[in-house]
Amino acid sequence: MPIHPQPVSAEPPLLRRLQTLCRGAELPGLGARLADLADLVAPDMVALEASMPRLRPEASAVERSASHLLDLGGKRLRPMCVALAARLGGGFDERTKQLALAVELVHAATLLHDDVVDVGETRRGAPTARLIFGNAVSIFAGDYLLVDALKRVRQARVDGVLDRLLDVLEEMILAESLQLERRGRLDTTEAQWFSIVEGKTAALFRFGMWAGARAGGADPDQCAVLERFGADLGVAFQAIDDLLDLAGDPDKTGKALFADLREGKLTYPVIVSLERDRGLTAVIEEIVAAETPDPRTCREALERIERTGSLRDGRKLAQMHADRAKRTIEDLPPSRARDALRTVADATIHRPA
Amino acid sequence: MPIHPQPVSAEPPLLRRLQTLCRGAELPGLGARLADLADLVAPDMVALEASMPRLRPEASAVERSASHLLDLGGKRLRPMCVALAARLGGGFDERTKQLALAVELVHAATLLHDDVVDVGETRRGAPTARLIFGNAVSIFAGDYLLVDALKRVRQARVDGVLDRLLDVLEEMILAESLQLERRGRLDTTEAQWFSIVEGKTAALFRFGMWAGARAGGADPDQCAVLERFGADLGVAFQAIDDLLDLAGDPDKTGKALFADLREGKLTYPVIVSLERDRGLTAVIEEIVAAETPDPRTCREALERIERTGSLRDGRKLAQMHADRAKRTIEDLPPSRARDALRTVADATIHRPA
Repeated sequence: MPIHPQPVSAEPPLLRRLQTLCRGAELPGLGARLADLADLVAPDMVALEASMPRLRPEASAVERSASHLLDLGGKRLRPMCVALAARLGGGFDERTKQLALAVELVHAATLLHDDVVDVGETRRGAPTARLIFGNAVSIFAGDYLLVDALKRVRQARVDGVLDRLLDVLEEMILAESLQLERRGRLDTTEAQWFSIVEGKTAALFRFGMWAGARAGGADPDQCAVLERFGADLGVAFQAIDDLLDLAGDPDKTGKALFADLREGKLTYPVIVSLERDRGLTAVIEEIVAAETPDPRTCREALERIERTGSLRDGRKLAQMHADRAKRTIEDLPPSRARDALRTVADATIHRPA
Repeated sequence: MPIHPQPVSAEPPLLRRLQTLCRGAELPGLGARLADLADLVAPDMVALEASMPRLRPEASAVERSASHLLDLGGKRLRPMCVALAARLGGGFDERTKQLALAVELVHAATLLHDDVVDVGETRRGAPTARLIFGNAVSIFAGDYLLVDALKRVRQARVDGVLDRLLDVLEEMILAESLQLERRGRLDTTEAQWFSIVEGKTAALFRFGMWAGARAGGADPDQCAVLERFGADLGVAFQAIDDLLDLAGDPDKTGKALFADLREGKLTYPVIVSLERDRGLTAVIEEIVAAETPDPRTCREALERIERTGSLRDGRKLAQMHADRAKRTIEDLPPSRARDALRTVADATIHRPA
């Protein structure tokens, strides 16, 4: 899709949202740190939005379907990670921007296919592309964005990045496969949850940090450090996502409560709760099986889940991974970008959506 | 998927099938020429089959779904084209084999996604992967094979081939998009048919010939000649495919008559017939709309289609493109591989499936 730069907000949606959250936030000083993060990456994120694929007037259904999702914005957390990793080295340039875009496009491609697979109806607060354009178009739209991402990585010509992305894509697909095989299976273990999350979510964060560092000219040791940061950040991110499925504000997350569970996806707190309260099995089974689960059943499930302490433990798991991510980058030379990555780790834990 | 070589037939299925057809064939001498073609490429095709992705014992659902399709064989026409193009130059080596495999895997990936999109039930004479493993698994299986193909092309490291494949994939996806937009639209034009076929079918033949030539060390002019051969062969192939949907033997094609039409895909003879016999519109509409069309309606449609001369013209179109393909390679230095490519063009026209 040829690029038609459009006016974009100077402030990435993630930061706007996080700043709203952090007024009166639990973590002292996070608001000011977010402002500094925004200040640092705002130009990169503006450049990124301006280079997002835009529609040709005669665009095909597949392109319109892909644009529908991309134009809804989203947090752009993954490309921001690429930008920050690059800023630890030589800074954000055209090549880094293309890698950052590629990471966002791969993410969007997985969302398009996921929404078909999960019969998803709402995404980013709007009807899913598959509802507007149909399942068939959304499948090919995912393929289209994947190829677009690969072309950008190819054209950036940063040594080793394309090979790494292909490996990461394979990991992501095999994790999706495992998730499908575990769908609706209430005997899913924590170990299986980790396998799924490491491939499905953390792999792309890991890749983004590594690729950004590599493009920014970091040495192999630093690239490895940032890769580990990305892996932990990804698990923290997914652990919070899992909590939001049970205790988020649908107006902020853009999706209904228990959406994952109704798609048969066992979230971390649910897996832990089922281990601790055997009686919960029947209640969860009812929610998974129901076309539209009874609100009373959902309330009962939530109360019982809360009583097992699994929501608290889910938050602890996220915190532990965010803390480990921060420790991983402790020994990097001090810089605004390093501080900003710490802020990202903290903000990931305190995000409302 | 790690590779476990398995015993394979020395004779590729295409040749076996074609030789059966050409006993008593309309084209004198084709049988002997096919035997020569078989003799030339059999070792390459055996090597190819031995390197097909094979299942690990603990393979995921996605891998099993992909293998289900690959193990059913198919014609392997596309990888054979890659092998022959390479044999015009330096011959068939490990790199060429990986490119040939990649082309077959891309083709298989599109079939997996197509069968989900078209709600296909039979493929290569067996239930489709989506019926056995589900739509979700088949979507990710297509993604998996696409990534596998790209990894092989990447590892083959033949200059320019990966970039070309990414461009061709984009073309293929946009053609699929156009096909979806025209689905069930009886006002589809011949020009639109060509746009769809050039992207959906011919692009991959074109790529395979070009990549094989490139890997075999052909000069840029020869690569361009073979690319044009592939483009024409692809159109000829699809024109025959379109005829087989109306007049093939379901036992040989592995799919029911009018399958394309019932999926809303307007084949060449149907497009031409609708231009020539306006009264046919209502009959075709009935077939497209029906869950299971009345056999009498199908017979009536077929008779009226035949009466317009569009089946004959469809065959002429295929013949014209096959002839042009053969003329394209006329000036290449004489070789068994060049003769074999001519045989492929002729056999494509006379194939039963």
